[in-house]
Amino acid sequence: MRQVAILGIGQTKIDEHWDLSLREIGGNAAFAAMQDAGMDKVDALFVGNMLSPLIDSQNQLGTYFSDWMGLWKQEAVKVEAACASGAAALRAGLMAVSAGDIESALIVGVEKMTDKAGHDITAALATAADADYEVEQGISFVGINALIMRRYMYEFGWQHADFAPFSINAHANAMHNPFARLHQKINVDQFEKSSMVATPINLMDASPIGDGAAAVIIVPAEKVASLKGKPRVTVVSSASATDAIAVHSRKDPLFLSAAYESSKRAYEMAKVGPKDIDVFELHDAFSIMSALSLEACGFAERGQGVRLGLDNEINPNGRVPVCTRGGLKARGHPVGATGVYQIVEVVQQLRGECDKTQVDGAKIGMAQNIGGSGATIITHILKAE
Amino acid sequence: MRQVAILGIGQTKIDEHWDLSLREIGGNAAFAAMQDAGMDKVDALFVGNMLSPLIDSQNQLGTYFSDWMGLWKQEAVKVEAACASGAAALRAGLMAVSAGDIESALIVGVEKMTDKAGHDITAALATAADADYEVEQGISFVGINALIMRRYMYEFGWQHADFAPFSINAHANAMHNPFARLHQKINVDQFEKSSMVATPINLMDASPIGDGAAAVIIVPAEKVASLKGKPRVTVVSSASATDAIAVHSRKDPLFLSAAYESSKRAYEMAKVGPKDIDVFELHDAFSIMSALSLEACGFAERGQGVRLGLDNEINPNGRVPVCTRGGLKARGHPVGATGVYQIVEVVQQLRGECDKTQVDGAKIGMAQNIGGSGATIITHILKAE
Repeated sequence: MRQVAILGIGQTKIDEHWDLSLREIGGNAAFAAMQDAGMDKVDALFVGNMLSPLIDSQNQLGTYFSDWMGLWKQEAVKVEAACASGAAALRAGLMAVSAGDIESALIVGVEKMTDKAGHDITAALATAADADYEVEQGISFVGINALIMRRYMYEFGWQHADFAPFSINAHANAMHNPFARLHQKINVDQFEKSSMVATPINLMDASPIGDGAAAVIIVPAEKVASLKGKPRVTVVSSASATDAIAVHSRKDPLFLSAAYESSKRAYEMAKVGPKDIDVFELHDAFSIMSALSLEACGFAERGQGVRLGLDNEINPNGRVPVCTRGGLKARGHPVGATGVYQIVEVVQQLRGECDKTQVDGAKIGMAQNIGGSGATIITHILKAE
Repeated sequence: MRQVAILGIGQTKIDEHWDLSLREIGGNAAFAAMQDAGMDKVDALFVGNMLSPLIDSQNQLGTYFSDWMGLWKQEAVKVEAACASGAAALRAGLMAVSAGDIESALIVGVEKMTDKAGHDITAALATAADADYEVEQGISFVGINALIMRRYMYEFGWQHADFAPFSINAHANAMHNPFARLHQKINVDQFEKSSMVATPINLMDASPIGDGAAAVIIVPAEKVASLKGKPRVTVVSSASATDAIAVHSRKDPLFLSAAYESSKRAYEMAKVGPKDIDVFELHDAFSIMSALSLEACGFAERGQGVRLGLDNEINPNGRVPVCTRGGLKARGHPVGATGVYQIVEVVQQLRGECDKTQVDGAKIGMAQNIGGSGATIITHILKAE
């Protein structure tokens, strides 16, 4: 299995891009990644997207982008795993390059969501849950996460305010990320007084949707002997695992077993442990997910994930820096694109390009993308050399 | 790159399965493939599907099936390339096994389409075309193919009846396939007098939709030293290529350049040519597509694809047997599942399990799956040893 390096990265600002089409948003990130890599052609495209059939009436998104970019003839495909579609697309590309079938791949995570609103988006996002066992019974995707959060608070004795540090950290970091959707600092008071969405989840617990795209170029590592000035970033491990889609079918609704499984495999493959991770771009779609991810990946004991925030350990100078570019909470969560944003951000950290939110001396970074309320979880570990 | 063998196959009858859920349909094919392979566990699932977000309000179909099958923890993902989703899922699985990342994979192609009808299905299928450049202008997916067929007839001087042999052959072969949707022989007169859909395409030019699923199990070929009684079937090549999605953006609307590209690469990889192919499961979504595929893949000169039918060369005893199990036309076309049905059928031929439509001494088979009106085309060549 060949080792793979990330040669180029690109991203668009996450926003309500009513003046840009789906192909322009994805194309802008893709062309930026090509330029960053100094390439004008790739062997294949892997596109991560969840909602374009529902929101944009467009399928076949792989070819849609190879077409738009003038990469006719090239192989192209879309990969979907709900909100984990971005990381799933990267993983599919990694397999093809590792196998030696292709020599380069462009991974694009893209979503244009804000052309629809309200019920349409709520219904579209609910396709990440179980249509028969959950959604048909009348619960929304936020509602599912709210049930998990309420149970966690009950079981481990936490108050709503104890989750505030996750959102405060994300918003503070996003101030220094020009691509982030939200540029506004928040404090505990604002966190507590925000509008309720589905109790106990309020607006400050929940990540905002948005239009956006991120892209990376991958090539065999042996072809990137040296990059002038920049460290070479390689993907040292990639692992995906699943759990039941419906929360009630899981052994323990408060344990992300797919995060445990995929991070365990990723650690083993990379020969590292949680202590070796300098930066962790986790999937904070809701504040409760930050706590559960930290626990399942071995950064905190069961029920103690929130303590890392309260102990001031999650900021860029802390022991476990998370959401260093704003996370889903403040950078924004264009669902199918998020997993690729996370990879782009880890690469920025490993290249030392993060300015005021740079994690000092970051050498090993981890990104974890979650599909559904914990059903599909994909972990990548990247290393700077 | 490790060679991969197909160890098990499974399929459901294509029909209007109003009494079966999406998970039951896919699960039935998947369990049948597991049983055929003698396995009760696989490392990963790759699901090909195009329409479940639109028809079944369900995304994340990889995990949906790993969940249903009790394969918790296992990696799972959905791959989508419009009507080429099935072959795209197989190709993604092949890459992962070839790379050495996993040791076995279950590929499921599945679609449940008949719960919706009329406008809903027409709109859903149109997501395979270009939403902005084609569909927004008011054309349906059948309409696009009708324009291509009309132009072909004009350019090369063929009459509508000249396409009849493709459909007659498909219907005749489906008589012997218990999994086929249609079991009714047709003749030229019936072909000509069938109801018009979008002139010149009538009901007998067009494949029927349906609910159905097909599945295969793949493993490294070296792990399948011998199979009692059955020949070992290996995937000797896999290649995917693309063209513009909108027909008007293609250099030549009557040449499937992505079929040419992907078959060329597949031939090279397998070190064979068109003459070596004993059976060809092509993508006859419309009769015109049969002609164009035969031409682009080197079985006929430009504009002469229909002659193979008229010369009686496409039946199981002919020079280029196609649609030996009924093809899309009579076996049926549950869009995202079709590519896997084609693979299952080539395996049946190479195992010598096709009874009255068996191609005598078939050793090398090809399957070609088309997404959109020729935008994404994936070719696999399989060999019996």
